Amino acid sequence: MKAVVLNAEWAPRQGAEIDPKDAARRWAVNANQVYKNPEATYETVDDPGEPGPRELVLKVGACGICGSDVHMFETDDDGYMFLPYHLATPVVTGHEFSGKVVAVGSAVTEFKVDDLVTAEEIQWCGECDACRGGYWNNCRFIEDLGFTIDGGFAEYVKVPAKACWSLNAVLERYGDEKTALEVGSMSEPTSVAYEGMFTRAGGFLPGRAVAVFGGGPIGLASVALAKAGGASKVFCLEPLPERREVAAKLGATHPINPLEVDAVEAIMEETKGDGVALAVEASGNFPAVMRTIERSLGIGGKVSIIGLDPRAAEVNFVDYQLKAGSIYGSIGHSGSWDFPNVIKLMASGQIDMHHAITKRFALAELVAAIDETKTRVDGKILVKSEL
Amino acid sequence: MKAVVLNAEWAPRQGAEIDPKDAARRWAVNANQVYKNPEATYETVDDPGEPGPRELVLKVGACGICGSDVHMFETDDDGYMFLPYHLATPVVTGHEFSGKVVAVGSAVTEFKVDDLVTAEEIQWCGECDACRGGYWNNCRFIEDLGFTIDGGFAEYVKVPAKACWSLNAVLERYGDEKTALEVGSMSEPTSVAYEGMFTRAGGFLPGRAVAVFGGGPIGLASVALAKAGGASKVFCLEPLPERREVAAKLGATHPINPLEVDAVEAIMEETKGDGVALAVEASGNFPAVMRTIERSLGIGGKVSIIGLDPRAAEVNFVDYQLKAGSIYGSIGHSGSWDFPNVIKLMASGQIDMHHAITKRFALAELVAAIDETKTRVDGKILVKSEL
Amino acid sequence: MKAVVLNAEWAPRQGAEIDPKDAARRWAVNANQVYKNPEATYETVDDPGEPGPRELVLKVGACGICGSDVHMFETDDDGYMFLPYHLATPVVTGHEFSGKVVAVGSAVTEFKVDDLVTAEEIQWCGECDACRGGYWNNCRFIEDLGFTIDGGFAEYVKVPAKACWSLNAVLERYGDEKTALEVGSMSEPTSVAYEGMFTRAGGFLPGRAVAVFGGGPIGLASVALAKAGGASKVFCLEPLPERREVAAKLGATHPINPLEVDAVEAIMEETKGDGVALAVEASGNFPAVMRTIERSLGIGGKVSIIGLDPRAAEVNFVDYQLKAGSIYGSIGHSGSWDFPNVIKLMASGQIDMHHAITKRFALAELVAAIDETKTRVDGKILVKSEL
Amino acid sequence: MKAVVLNAEWAPRQGAEIDPKDAARRWAVNANQVYKNPEATYETVDDPGEPGPRELVLKVGACGICGSDVHMFETDDDGYMFLPYHLATPVVTGHEFSGKVVAVGSAVTEFKVDDLVTAEEIQWCGECDACRGGYWNNCRFIEDLGFTIDGGFAEYVKVPAKACWSLNAVLERYGDEKTALEVGSMSEPTSVAYEGMFTRAGGFLPGRAVAVFGGGPIGLASVALAKAGGASKVFCLEPLPERREVAAKLGATHPINPLEVDAVEAIMEETKGDGVALAVEASGNFPAVMRTIERSLGIGGKVSIIGLDPRAAEVNFVDYQLKAGSIYGSIGHSGSWDFPNVIKLMASGQIDMHHAITKRFALAELVAAIDETKTRVDGKILVKSEL
Repeated sequence: MKAVVLNAEWAPRQGAEIDPKDAARRWAVNANQVYKNPEATYETVDDPGEPGPRELVLKVGACGICGSDVHMFETDDDGYMFLPYHLATPVVTGHEFSGKVVAVGSAVTEFKVDDLVTAEEIQWCGECDACRGGYWNNCRFIEDLGFTIDGGFAEYVKVPAKACWSLNAVLERYGDEKTALEVGSMSEPTSVAYEGMFTRAGGFLPGRAVAVFGGGPIGLASVALAKAGGASKVFCLEPLPERREVAAKLGATHPINPLEVDAVEAIMEETKGDGVALAVEASGNFPAVMRTIERSLGIGGKVSIIGLDPRAAEVNFVDYQLKAGSIYGSIGHSGSWDFPNVIKLMASGQIDMHHAITKRFALAELVAAIDETKTRVDGKILVKSEL
Repeated sequence: MKAVVLNAEWAPRQGAEIDPKDAARRWAVNANQVYKNPEATYETVDDPGEPGPRELVLKVGACGICGSDVHMFETDDDGYMFLPYHLATPVVTGHEFSGKVVAVGSAVTEFKVDDLVTAEEIQWCGECDACRGGYWNNCRFIEDLGFTIDGGFAEYVKVPAKACWSLNAVLERYGDEKTALEVGSMSEPTSVAYEGMFTRAGGFLPGRAVAVFGGGPIGLASVALAKAGGASKVFCLEPLPERREVAAKLGATHPINPLEVDAVEAIMEETKGDGVALAVEASGNFPAVMRTIERSLGIGGKVSIIGLDPRAAEVNFVDYQLKAGSIYGSIGHSGSWDFPNVIKLMASGQIDMHHAITKRFALAELVAAIDETKTRVDGKILVKSEL
Repeated sequence: MKAVVLNAEWAPRQGAEIDPKDAARRWAVNANQVYKNPEATYETVDDPGEPGPRELVLKVGACGICGSDVHMFETDDDGYMFLPYHLATPVVTGHEFSGKVVAVGSAVTEFKVDDLVTAEEIQWCGECDACRGGYWNNCRFIEDLGFTIDGGFAEYVKVPAKACWSLNAVLERYGDEKTALEVGSMSEPTSVAYEGMFTRAGGFLPGRAVAVFGGGPIGLASVALAKAGGASKVFCLEPLPERREVAAKLGATHPINPLEVDAVEAIMEETKGDGVALAVEASGNFPAVMRTIERSLGIGGKVSIIGLDPRAAEVNFVDYQLKAGSIYGSIGHSGSWDFPNVIKLMASGQIDMHHAITKRFALAELVAAIDETKTRVDGKILVKSEL
Repeated sequence: MKAVVLNAEWAPRQGAEIDPKDAARRWAVNANQVYKNPEATYETVDDPGEPGPRELVLKVGACGICGSDVHMFETDDDGYMFLPYHLATPVVTGHEFSGKVVAVGSAVTEFKVDDLVTAEEIQWCGECDACRGGYWNNCRFIEDLGFTIDGGFAEYVKVPAKACWSLNAVLERYGDEKTALEVGSMSEPTSVAYEGMFTRAGGFLPGRAVAVFGGGPIGLASVALAKAGGASKVFCLEPLPERREVAAKLGATHPINPLEVDAVEAIMEETKGDGVALAVEASGNFPAVMRTIERSLGIGGKVSIIGLDPRAAEVNFVDYQLKAGSIYGSIGHSGSWDFPNVIKLMASGQIDMHHAITKRFALAELVAAIDETKTRVDGKILVKSEL
C-alpha cells in the first residue's frame, strides 16, 4: 500500500539520558532530544496484513494534520526535530483518522466489515500504576498511533478494536460516507478538547461564559464544545481572521483579535464584570496568554491547559486566590468516554465539526504540502486517501 | 392594592408538635399538619409601603402558578390543606414572579427604578449551621416569599434586594417588557430544575442522554436545561399529549407516553443500551417512576430528585451498585448562582421558556380559576397583574 | 496441590435466560438462577503450572472467608445456591488472599520471587464500554478470582501481575511474614469499603461524624477507614457484642447495639443535632437499616451502599431533599487505587486490620468449618495454607 | 479597656486608584498602596459597649499573631506598610482570637454568657454576586475583624454571633479554660489551612502522601490536618529546626530541611516514585518553592496555594499535563464549615494544635515584642489578655 513514512536520524544530544531498551527500538521519550534530519517520503510499504484476534484493519477515509505532525518536519537551530513528544521512526504518521472496516479479528464482536470507525491515538497498557488509578492518558508505558506505531497517513491502518469507536451514527446524520469520514476524523482533536474541558477541569455551569485562547483545530473544537455544553457567551481569541470566521460558525459568540482589542476589557464588558467560568488554553503559547487568562477569570473560574508548550510561564497565584480559581493540566483523550461523547454530539448535530475543515490534500500530495501546513493559517487540514 | 390572599384555619392535628413561637405567628412547618379550610380571596390590601434600606418594591409583571400554590387550595379527607410545606396565613401567595422596580431602598446600589427583576423565593438567614456550611436551601430559619411572607399574586410586592436578579438581559433578547416579564417569571421554577440537575447532581457529560420524568413546569424546564447543557438525547416521559408537545418545543428529542410505550425499552433502544446519564424526577409521584428510573439508568448514571412527594418509594439499590449509580435529593434554588445562570441561558436564547407558558389569567380572575388549575393539563399558567 | 473446590449442579431455573456461550462454560451471571446442590471438597488438584508472560504464581499465605463464600454453601427453599453473583464451577473459591511470589512470568518486571503480594478479585477486560469509561468494577465481561477463575483456598494460585499489589511495606511494619500475610489478606474487603466510602461517595470532610451500619468484616473495615480519614466520631451499629468490641479496637468511638438503643437519638445527641456526614451501609440488610440511615443523616450527608441485598428497600426521598442528601451504589475495588491506598494505610499503621481477624482455620479444616461460618458472629475468619 | 491600636498615615501613592467612599473612612483595598508610618500603641480605648441584637461581647482569652499582623508593622523602602491586604486605621488588630462570652445580644439564642467561642475573621455581606454564588471568602464587600473592624488584641471584642463558633467541646477535651482558649485561638489559622486543603482543593485520598511547604503556623496546621485526614506520609519542608520539631509533633513523618536535602529526591524515594497527592504551599514564597512542588507531585496530584505572595512565579504546565495535576488558589475560611470541622478535630484529639504554640506575651507586652516577632523563628505566638 501507499503511505507517508517519517524517517529521521537517531542522534541523541550530548547528555541525553536514553534507556538502552528504548535505543534498541529507536523509541524516543522526547523526539527533540534524539532525532535529527526528519524526512517524509511517499512510498509503497507492506500492507497491514491480517488483523490479530482483537484487531481491525481500516481503509483510511480521512486523516487530519495535527500541530504535532507539523512539528515532526520542523527542526530547531541544532537540526533537532521540534516535536517534544515520543516517537519511534521509521513510522507512518497521522493519528487523527477515520476509516472503513475491511477486516475484523477473530475475537472482535463489536465491529463488522463496512462499519465506519475512528480510533484513539493513545494506546495505554492498563497494567501500570497510572492506568490502574484511572489515569490512562498518563500511562507509563504508553504507545501512540502515528508516533510510535504506524498511523493513518496511509491507505490502510491496523488498530486494536479496544481503541475504536463506531462512526455509524455520524453517517446517519450526514448521509454520505465521505462527509461522515471527514467529520469522524475530527473525533481525536475534539476529544482532546473534551478531555481538557469536561473530564479534567470538570466543565462549567451552563449559562456561564467560556473563553478559548487560540483558534487552531483544538481551539475550534473547544469553541464548539463550549457552545454545546451551554456557555451563554463563547469568546475565541485568535489573531487570524480566517480562523475567527470558522470559530464564529462553530459557536463563538465573540471572536476577538487580541492584537487589536484589549481582550480582558472586552470579556469583562461583555460579561458585565463576571469574567469567564472556564478559560481554555489552546494556543500552545503559554507566556503570551497566561496573564490575559488570569485577568479574564471570574470568581470560581477554571483554567484548562490543553495546548502544549515546553516553556514555563509566569503565574500570579494571588489572582487565583482572590477569585477561588483553579488550573488543570490536560493531555490525551482516553479512559473517560471522551470519544463516544464527542461522537454523540456530532451525531446529534450539537457540534458540526465539518465547519472546521478548511483544506484537503490527497495522500500523494502530503509530502509536497508539508511546507504549506507550517504557515498555520488554516482550521483543520485533512489528508484523504482518495478524493 | 389588589391581591389574592390565602386564609386558612389554624387547627393543629391531634398530636402535632407545634413550637409555641410558631403558633404565635401562625407559622406552620408543615401546613398539612395544622391548616384547615383554605380560602382565597381577591381583595384590597395595604400597599407594600416604602422599601427598607436594602429592599425593592416591584410592580408585579407576571406570577406563575406552582403546584404548591394549587396544593394550598386542595384538602385531604380530614379537611387539611394538602401542602406539606411551611406556611403562615393570611398571606399573599405566589412565588414565581417578575416585576418592574418602582421603589428602591436607600442602601441599594445594584438596582434602579424601571429595572426588570425576579426574586428568589427562599429567604435564608445566613446565620444558622446550614447556611454557614453553604446549604442555604436547607436553612433552619427559612422564610419563603409567597408562603410565609407576602408574594406575587398582587399588584405590588416588596422584596429584599439580596433576593433579586436583573432581567434586563432578558428584555434585550425579547425586545418587549411584557414578554420579558413573562419569561422572567419562569426563572424560579427553571432554577429549581437547575439546582437539581447541575448544582446538586453535578450535571452530566455533554453528549450523553437525559430522561425527564414528568412534563409539568419543572419537568419542562428540565428538558430545556438538558438540551442546553448538551444532552444528545432528551427523553420526556409524560402521559398528556399537550405537555409532550411543549416538551418537544423545548428540546425533548423523545417525548414518550409511558402509558403506551415501554419507556425502559424505548430508552435502551434509542441509546443503544447505554441508558441515561441523568434521570430527573419531576413527576412528584415517586412510587410510580422509581422502578423505571432504575432500569433506564446507564453506567455511572445519576438520579436527581426534584419533584416533591411525601410518600416513600421502593429502591433496588443493587441496580445502583451494578451501575455505579447515585441519587441526589434537591430542593430550592439559592446559594449557587442558579438564578443568574438560568437568566443568562434565557438571555442567550439557549432556553426559550416562553414555549412553556400555555395559559394566562388576570389577577382578578385567579380565585375563580383555581379549580381549573387543579386539572394539571397545562404547561405553566401565569397570572398577570395587567393583561 | 491441595485445594477446596466448589462443585454444583448446572440446573437453570425455569425461564432463566442463559446465553448459550455462558452455558457452554457453566458460567452463571447469577448463581442463584442456575446452580443447585453446591458441595465443597478438599482435594488434590493440578498445580497452577508455569505462569504466563504477565502472570505470577503465589504460595497462598492467608485467604479470608467472605460472606459471598458462605452464600455459595447456603441454598434457598428450591435448593438453589444463595449467591446472587456470577460463578462458574468447578472452581477453587476464595478471593481475599495474600501470598508469596514463587514464580514470575517472563514479562513481569514489577514483582520478583519472595515478594509478598495480594490481588484484586475483579478481572476487568479493559475493552468494553464500561471499562473504557473508567468503570472497571462494572465491566461487562468481568471475571472474578475465586468465582469464575480459581482463587485462594488452595496452596497455590496463579494471578495476572496487573491484578497484584505489593505487601512488602506491610511486612516492614509488622516485621514477620505470617502477620503481614494475615493483614495483607484483608486488603480486598478493606478496599471494597474504601471504594464505597472514598472513591464512589467522595469521602467526608475530616472532623465530621460517620456511621457504619453493620459490624461484619466490611463494616469493621469501614470503621477503621472512617477513623483514618478523620471522622471525629465513628458510630458502629451492630447487635453482636463481639463485633462491637472489635469495632471499638478499630476506631469506633460509639459502638451501638441498635436492638437496645434508639440509634437515631443516640447519633443526634452525640453529634449535637448535626447528624452524620457519611452513612455506610455494610449490613446487607437494606430494609432493616435504611430508615435509620435517613434519619441519622446530617445536612449534606451521603449514604454509601456497600452491603449486598437483592431486596428493594423503602426510601423517603423527602428526607434527602430537605437535607441535601445523596446515595451512592458501590461494588468492587478496581480502577482507582483502592488497593494501594489501603495498603499504604496498613503500612503506616493508620489502620490495623489485624484486630479484625478473630478466627483461623487450616485449609484442610475449611470444608468441615463451613457450617460454623454460617453463624456470622465473628469478625474476619482466615484460612491459612499452613498454620 | 486596654488595647493595642494600629495607627498609620493615609498617604496614597502617586497614581493609586482610591474610591472616594473608601477614602472617607480610611479604608484601603491594599494597605501597601496607601498607608505609611504604621505605629502600634498600647492604650485605653472605649469598651465595646452593649452588643447589638445579634452580637456578642467577648473577654479575649488569647489572640495569635499572624504573619499579616507583623506585615502591618513592617515597611518597604518607600515607607509604605508591607501588608498587601485591606485595612482601615485606627483599628485594634488581631484576628485569631478566642474568648469567653460576657454579654449576649437580645436576638442571640445560640450562645450564652460564659461560653467559650472563637470567631471567623471574614465578615461577608451575603448579598453580593460572590456571596450569592457560595464564594463568601471572595465577598466583594468584605470586612475583616482585626483589619477593618476592631479585633482581638484587646481586653474585649464585640463580634457578630453569626461569625462565632462554640469552643465548649474543646474545653471538654482540655479540661481547663486557659488551655482551651489557647487551642481555640488556633481555630482561625487552622481553618485557613483546612479551606485550602479540603474545601478548595477537595482533599486527598486517605493513604496517599502530602507535602507541606513551609513550617510557619499555617504550614504547621496543614501538617496536622494532613495527618488527621489520613496521609500515610507527611513531608514538611522547613529550614528552621525549631519549626521542624514542632511539625514532627503535629504529625509530620518526614520533616525536611530543603537547604540541606534534595527535597524532590527525598520525596520520590520515600514514596517509591509515587510523589505526593497534595502539595500545600504555606511558605508565602512562591518563586522559591513552585519548581520543587511541580517535581514532587504524583499522578493526579493537586497543589493548594494558601500562602500569600504578591509575586508571580514560573510554572511548568507541561508537568501538570503529564501528571494530570491541578492547582487551587485559596484564601479565607468561611462558608463551608471549616471552623466547626476544625474545632471537632481539636475536640476529638485528632489534631493537637497546642503543640504549635511556642511563645506567649501579655497584651501589655505586645508593642515591645513586635520586633521579636519579625524574626519568624517561632511556631505560633499568642497574646493573652491575662497571664
